[in-house]
Amino acid sequence: MKTIKYMIPLLLFFVMTGKGVNAQAPDAYEPWRAAWLRKAEQAKPTLISRICKPTAKAEVVKDSASYQGWKVVKTDSPDRLYRVSLKETKSMIADFGEHITGTFSCVFDTLGNISDAPVRLRLTFAEMPAELGEPFDPYSGGLSRAWLQDEIVTIPYLPYTLTLPRRVSFRYLKIELLASSSYFDLCIADMQTTAVSCVSTPEIEPAAETDSLIRKINDIGLATLKECMQTVYEDGPKRDQRLWIGDLYLESLANAYSFRNDSLTKRCLYLLAGLAREDGTLNSNIAEMPTPRAQNSVTLDYCLLYNCALLEYLKNTGDRETAADLWPVALNQVRLARHYLDDSGLYDTSVQPQLWLVFDWKDNFDRHASIQGLMTFAFSETCRLARLLGKEADVKELPALIKKMKKASRDFFYDPKQGVFVSGNNRQISYLSQAWMTLSETLPLRECAQALSKTIRNPEACYPGSPYGYHYVIEALIKCGLHAEAKQMLTGYWGGMVEKGADTFWEVYDPNDDRRSPYNSHLVNSYCHAWSCTPVYFINKYPEIFQR
Amino acid sequence: MKTIKYMIPLLLFFVMTGKGVNAQAPDAYEPWRAAWLRKAEQAKPTLISRICKPTAKAEVVKDSASYQGWKVVKTDSPDRLYRVSLKETKSMIADFGEHITGTFSCVFDTLGNISDAPVRLRLTFAEMPAELGEPFDPYSGGLSRAWLQDEIVTIPYLPYTLTLPRRVSFRYLKIELLASSSYFDLCIADMQTTAVSCVSTPEIEPAAETDSLIRKINDIGLATLKECMQTVYEDGPKRDQRLWIGDLYLESLANAYSFRNDSLTKRCLYLLAGLAREDGTLNSNIAEMPTPRAQNSVTLDYCLLYNCALLEYLKNTGDRETAADLWPVALNQVRLARHYLDDSGLYDTSVQPQLWLVFDWKDNFDRHASIQGLMTFAFSETCRLARLLGKEADVKELPALIKKMKKASRDFFYDPKQGVFVSGNNRQISYLSQAWMTLSETLPLRECAQALSKTIRNPEACYPGSPYGYHYVIEALIKCGLHAEAKQMLTGYWGGMVEKGADTFWEVYDPNDDRRSPYNSHLVNSYCHAWSCTPVYFINKYPEIFQR
Repeated sequence: MKTIKYMIPLLLFFVMTGKGVNAQAPDAYEPWRAAWLRKAEQAKPTLISRICKPTAKAEVVKDSASYQGWKVVKTDSPDRLYRVSLKETKSMIADFGEHITGTFSCVFDTLGNISDAPVRLRLTFAEMPAELGEPFDPYSGGLSRAWLQDEIVTIPYLPYTLTLPRRVSFRYLKIELLASSSYFDLCIADMQTTAVSCVSTPEIEPAAETDSLIRKINDIGLATLKECMQTVYEDGPKRDQRLWIGDLYLESLANAYSFRNDSLTKRCLYLLAGLAREDGTLNSNIAEMPTPRAQNSVTLDYCLLYNCALLEYLKNTGDRETAADLWPVALNQVRLARHYLDDSGLYDTSVQPQLWLVFDWKDNFDRHASIQGLMTFAFSETCRLARLLGKEADVKELPALIKKMKKASRDFFYDPKQGVFVSGNNRQISYLSQAWMTLSETLPLRECAQALSKTIRNPEACYPGSPYGYHYVIEALIKCGLHAEAKQMLTGYWGGMVEKGADTFWEVYDPNDDRRSPYNSHLVNSYCHAWSCTPVYFINKYPEIFQR
Repeated sequence: MKTIKYMIPLLLFFVMTGKGVNAQAPDAYEPWRAAWLRKAEQAKPTLISRICKPTAKAEVVKDSASYQGWKVVKTDSPDRLYRVSLKETKSMIADFGEHITGTFSCVFDTLGNISDAPVRLRLTFAEMPAELGEPFDPYSGGLSRAWLQDEIVTIPYLPYTLTLPRRVSFRYLKIELLASSSYFDLCIADMQTTAVSCVSTPEIEPAAETDSLIRKINDIGLATLKECMQTVYEDGPKRDQRLWIGDLYLESLANAYSFRNDSLTKRCLYLLAGLAREDGTLNSNIAEMPTPRAQNSVTLDYCLLYNCALLEYLKNTGDRETAADLWPVALNQVRLARHYLDDSGLYDTSVQPQLWLVFDWKDNFDRHASIQGLMTFAFSETCRLARLLGKEADVKELPALIKKMKKASRDFFYDPKQGVFVSGNNRQISYLSQAWMTLSETLPLRECAQALSKTIRNPEACYPGSPYGYHYVIEALIKCGLHAEAKQMLTGYWGGMVEKGADTFWEVYDPNDDRRSPYNSHLVNSYCHAWSCTPVYFINKYPEIFQR
């Protein structure tokens, strides 16, 4: 059953790879596309490099008390990695002391005799101890096995400097000798990673007196964000290494309250626009290499969040030129979404083509109330954007529609007896349904607060499966004044990752299931994932809540 | 037992890695070493490149009638390798139509959707069909598993041009898809190998009317030699990729009757001298990368063959300067060898350190008579070299010693009743004992001819295990006038490889055992091996024997 469950989003994903709705001939963005892509290129940041060396020699140990059953133990100083017989040790683990993303190179040398034969090695780069402890094969995951960062290399002679062509993202490196000659021994003479990011030091940080756990969460959030800020906002530097709209939105929020590299946000907004479909619909994500190209996929919640990200960008930077440039894109996302509304203003789940709705990684989570809420929220944000740009005329029918949608939401999703929003045939009570109904102000905030409050106290409620889901819940808690609950959720959920040894925050985290994976393999999960960086945003945007 | 047998040469090899005999303080070649290495560098040839593409799509088929039980069948034109779904085919074999050595690169592309994940592939480069048909693991061989030419690569995105850092040597390439994403399919868009050699076209070739099998043997011998002629005379481009004295000797003989790249011979003679031990002894082999260095090993037969190679070089080129430069090296090899002679002029098998004697790859072959004969032969050749250089005074005691050695040989190894030379406690009758006693003219040539003739007609006699061994037998047959037998042996032995589909001649070939390997794995044998190229020398040096 697990296999089937995790495949549902993937299946929807494929359903949606055809042409989107509202096709217009020939290209909605023809007049601007080339200029948008040029502006995206001009805004491309220069990566900042630094040389990282191992900070310890380490071992991985099975330990049921540790996260996912494994812990890394430092066994020696890093100099013990060098000039040591690889034939004796067979396998060595280097701990680089922090999560890094970049190009790895290693100098191998002979110990004594000249090398008379090539050497075969396996290098395994690991974000997490489990990636060191558990074999990668046989592989059970639903995503490409090639995401796992083990490389088998042939060293033709010694000394030899190996530089891996693949960018790697890791804290730990395991080096295993697979084959060598009886005639000579070999060692590592040196190794390093040229770590890259487009940012280095945040411009905003919590006050000195901030509680140490909050500071720690902020630091790890910063590390997570930094690692994902490359020449685009990546979702994760290990996987998928791509620009997804949902991640962009949360990363740009966190960036606005930390590194303030607005140029990267601008680049990503233009890239997504320049690579949108001809009918105006945004693709959910973009791969940069070898040249920027969109994946042929539409996720409706992400399309709408683009508008929210654009509004935030304008608010944070005052860059009206960019926002005005991209206003037609925002309008098209509204048009796409409206296709899914019935006459009463309710999201109609039967409209074709059915679009993938991301929202969270969580089995059985019912998305109906959430998409209704998110759509309402995004329409409101689009109206705000229109006001800032003097484009109210373009969306003059939206305020009435929003009103209608809220009424439909209350009629359809709100259960006045229970005082919560329910979703789906099974009338599921989920954190996210309450969150999106709150963010969209579908009920007065006091009632939203009650719905949220009841839900998070209900052990039967469907809680989020990912930091991405939790972000919106915390935003909603703050919005309706549940500050203590917001803080508690942040310190509880992200603090749980801290307690379990996170160097960066994870794509998926379920406090009750260490090995949860939407891909049927916790090994292929991303453990430095952009959408989990938002404590940086909360802590620094709301110091009165989190910094005292 | 097999395991123990094939390890014996290796064991001797290790015994001998200490300092050689006759150590002189501090460096016998101090005045010249730097100049020798400089001259070696100056004589380094420029490699000639050519682009090679697959000539067919192929499959490998189990076939008990084929060599080693496998045959490659061409299934399609080479264009069917391209733009074909790798997800459907899973595995594809490209036949490049000839043995090539060089740098492989391949362009991978997506079929349709953009690549959303890396791809993992295994590329297996094969000289022989068995390398395509049989799994490499578990590996039973005594040499490094890393010699086997399978590389596991990660393609980070598509389109992507992969260029393997490792030089490969192969005819066939198998490409297997190990991991990919469900979201896109991929294909090969193009592939090629930049093949290299320092030679291209021979200056000498057999007459047009030469028998077609002889012409074929000559062609394959030329291909073998060309593949091994890189920036040194390599023993084999797949394995060991090194300059060994024994291979140099035979390659330079064949080169003198084909490509005539005398500069390469000069380079190798200087390299070996420049990297000899401080006591004057030559090391058996040299690795070029990353900078030329000698393997710490001495093989007595190879040391002595250096003198023979130097003489041949002088005779073929008239380059007295080089020969005179390197004369001290020749003298030192004679001095080393004399250490192993007892007062009667017999090679004393108890003298320490015991040196590895190569001669052949053949289990149980007794080398005593052969080393005695080779030493006598090499001393005679050194005297000839001395005469050409006017250095007779340096070796004035040698002629008497040679005489004494021949007498000792006759007394100790010749069995007048049987009319053959025997060797070892079991009085083994081997082809090579007769060959070396013939080449050294230990008996009048008529008696040598009888010994050889009897031996090759004796089904119990120990026949050579390698083309290297057969070379000396054929040279001996020619020397004592057994021309028909020489031709028959050449067409029988090398013709056997031709019949079994050789593109290049093999390191090891036993007509009675397809899977013979000195390394306990026929997969790690070299199937393009320099020491098997000498039909080129015989056919073109002795046209009256082979070309009519």
